[in-house]
Amino acid sequence: MVTQLEHADVTSARTTRSNRVHQYTFDTLPLRRGGQFGPITVAYETWGKLNAAGDNAILITHALTGNSHAHDPENLDDTKIAWWNPLIGPGRFFDTSRYFVICSNILGGCYGTTGPSSINPSTGQTYGIRFPVITILDMIETQRRLIEHLGVSRLHMVAGGSIGGQQALEWAIAYPELVENVIVIAATAALTAQAIAFSEVQRQAILSDPRWQNGEYAPGLGPEAGLSIARMLAMITYQSEEGMELRFARQRAHKQPVPPPSSFTDPSERFDVEGYLYYQGQSLVRRFDANSYLYISRAMDLYDVSEGYPSLEVALSRLRSKALFIGIRSDFLFPAARVRWLSDQAKAAGSNAMYAELDSPHGHDAFLKEWKQMTDALNLIKE
Amino acid sequence: MVTQLEHADVTSARTTRSNRVHQYTFDTLPLRRGGQFGPITVAYETWGKLNAAGDNAILITHALTGNSHAHDPENLDDTKIAWWNPLIGPGRFFDTSRYFVICSNILGGCYGTTGPSSINPSTGQTYGIRFPVITILDMIETQRRLIEHLGVSRLHMVAGGSIGGQQALEWAIAYPELVENVIVIAATAALTAQAIAFSEVQRQAILSDPRWQNGEYAPGLGPEAGLSIARMLAMITYQSEEGMELRFARQRAHKQPVPPPSSFTDPSERFDVEGYLYYQGQSLVRRFDANSYLYISRAMDLYDVSEGYPSLEVALSRLRSKALFIGIRSDFLFPAARVRWLSDQAKAAGSNAMYAELDSPHGHDAFLKEWKQMTDALNLIKE
Repeated sequence: MVTQLEHADVTSARTTRSNRVHQYTFDTLPLRRGGQFGPITVAYETWGKLNAAGDNAILITHALTGNSHAHDPENLDDTKIAWWNPLIGPGRFFDTSRYFVICSNILGGCYGTTGPSSINPSTGQTYGIRFPVITILDMIETQRRLIEHLGVSRLHMVAGGSIGGQQALEWAIAYPELVENVIVIAATAALTAQAIAFSEVQRQAILSDPRWQNGEYAPGLGPEAGLSIARMLAMITYQSEEGMELRFARQRAHKQPVPPPSSFTDPSERFDVEGYLYYQGQSLVRRFDANSYLYISRAMDLYDVSEGYPSLEVALSRLRSKALFIGIRSDFLFPAARVRWLSDQAKAAGSNAMYAELDSPHGHDAFLKEWKQMTDALNLIKE
Repeated sequence: MVTQLEHADVTSARTTRSNRVHQYTFDTLPLRRGGQFGPITVAYETWGKLNAAGDNAILITHALTGNSHAHDPENLDDTKIAWWNPLIGPGRFFDTSRYFVICSNILGGCYGTTGPSSINPSTGQTYGIRFPVITILDMIETQRRLIEHLGVSRLHMVAGGSIGGQQALEWAIAYPELVENVIVIAATAALTAQAIAFSEVQRQAILSDPRWQNGEYAPGLGPEAGLSIARMLAMITYQSEEGMELRFARQRAHKQPVPPPSSFTDPSERFDVEGYLYYQGQSLVRRFDANSYLYISRAMDLYDVSEGYPSLEVALSRLRSKALFIGIRSDFLFPAARVRWLSDQAKAAGSNAMYAELDSPHGHDAFLKEWKQMTDALNLIKE
């Protein structure tokens, strides 16, 4: 089954988009943690044309709260409308005049792909927490069904950052013969204890909100305060001390157009950075499902590239792709040193791996901001 | 008015303590943010004897959720019972055979000093959020009333870490003639935007808990989930990526004796670090008042050593104390580079300042763990 829908139907917050979001539905998927799950619908967008051999496709994998709208042909330079816009298009790194570029919403998401907020056809109710535990491998297996459906015989490239980087890496490990080039950005072999800890605080903020209601909230009546607090914390981890100091330092807030998640404003002076975080929290609440947040962030925590193999070395020795790893100097969620280490391990395991580092103060999110440096780093894989 | 109470009366969680907690009450205090506030009761403990000149006193200032029980003469090496035990006692750095060592619970606290959970004598109700905004200066003004009451003419030393370090610094700036030596540990001239942001996420977790009830919860019926989540996050910021990796890495939790704040346990595998954070959250909930947490963490955010002076340089030029600044290599809440910078600025402003750094993986909390390194660093001020 293939259907089409406007992005405006998927989320009312993004009505200015132009591009068709397609959907493909398949019956069932065996899950890494056991059992079969289905049917699964995948929402996706494509740009450019697939060649006759089916081997000029590029798969782009998005970050935690992202979606398939990586590129917007009618708003080529607007990064608010499409998250990787400056890197995609005719003549750009992901060259839509030469390649068939695909981006799909991940399994567990809330932008048209089956997730906890989808209706379970066997009950007529949303899945909520009856949605199964999902993993990065399940996400890429879903993508694999999609590219087969699209007639892709081999992926010229898989590229993504953060959980998108985990997916890119897993693609190259699980299906080495299918991936010619892989670009793993701001992702590591596995999350650190600190990153898992930050994740769990975020999940507890959602789960402790009484409006979460065991995951059975009605649309628009979900755990808004909890999700907002989770996002506030996440936004700190996506930036850096240095970047926040450059942007906010100790500037006072002169007005606070966005109320805090609690709606309570204490009587002391407030700081600009606080109002910024409230705004970020509120923005996410308007566009994202809390249960999706729980499932996808857990999938990030669970990911370990060596899972299913006797060792990390054995896992990495499977690589056949040319591999580019990109770290970010000021990233403390996926530290550059750990990205570089992963690249070194891949090379030691026999792969054609290279490493580049963005010299940015913007922390983890630099792969969504530093367009010039990103383009320069990405181009290394062509050399 | 001076009264005595056993620590066991202050909090049932610490029944094994030996030492008398004294209380001193004075009528009123002018507050930095305006207005008068009182009466104020200060809970304090002392060890050693004040000399006839009244100039052999050492004031120790505690951290956010700390209390006056820095030392326990009957359990000299137990750091769970008394938080700076290994540094205090006969022959130790804070030598109780030579000095009169004082530690008082800070203004706004919940260990016997007046705070939001105290009864407002004019209403017969707890203050709750009618408690005034308090600052580091108000805390030390409260301590100043106490030491005058005790007959102290001059402080041989003021020493503390974290918000205790802010207090020590403020003592030496506000009352340069009263402080002979000052030791500022893991504290900076002012919090970074990132640290303020972490603070605010913690406060929002408390304020968004419906049991917070605008601060008017009954004892034992407070925002336990919110305070627990706040503590979970705080505990991450008190450690470091390196330290958490050493202790937890990605170890799975084999049992989870402490439920999460939400009481909901998701069905996927869990990590050891998560159970640890639940435990830390629950422990704080049992011993600490949520409104105190809000007020004291805000005081930390608001602190800027230059407040009230034309510039940082002017503020630091007031120093007359011999000053030792101690940073911690892996501290990201109060980064070592910023502690060193403050020390350099103090020196540039003409003070006798020195800097030492703990080479510890334990992050901010190292000043409560690295006893050998702490003793070595502290001893520098005697040279």
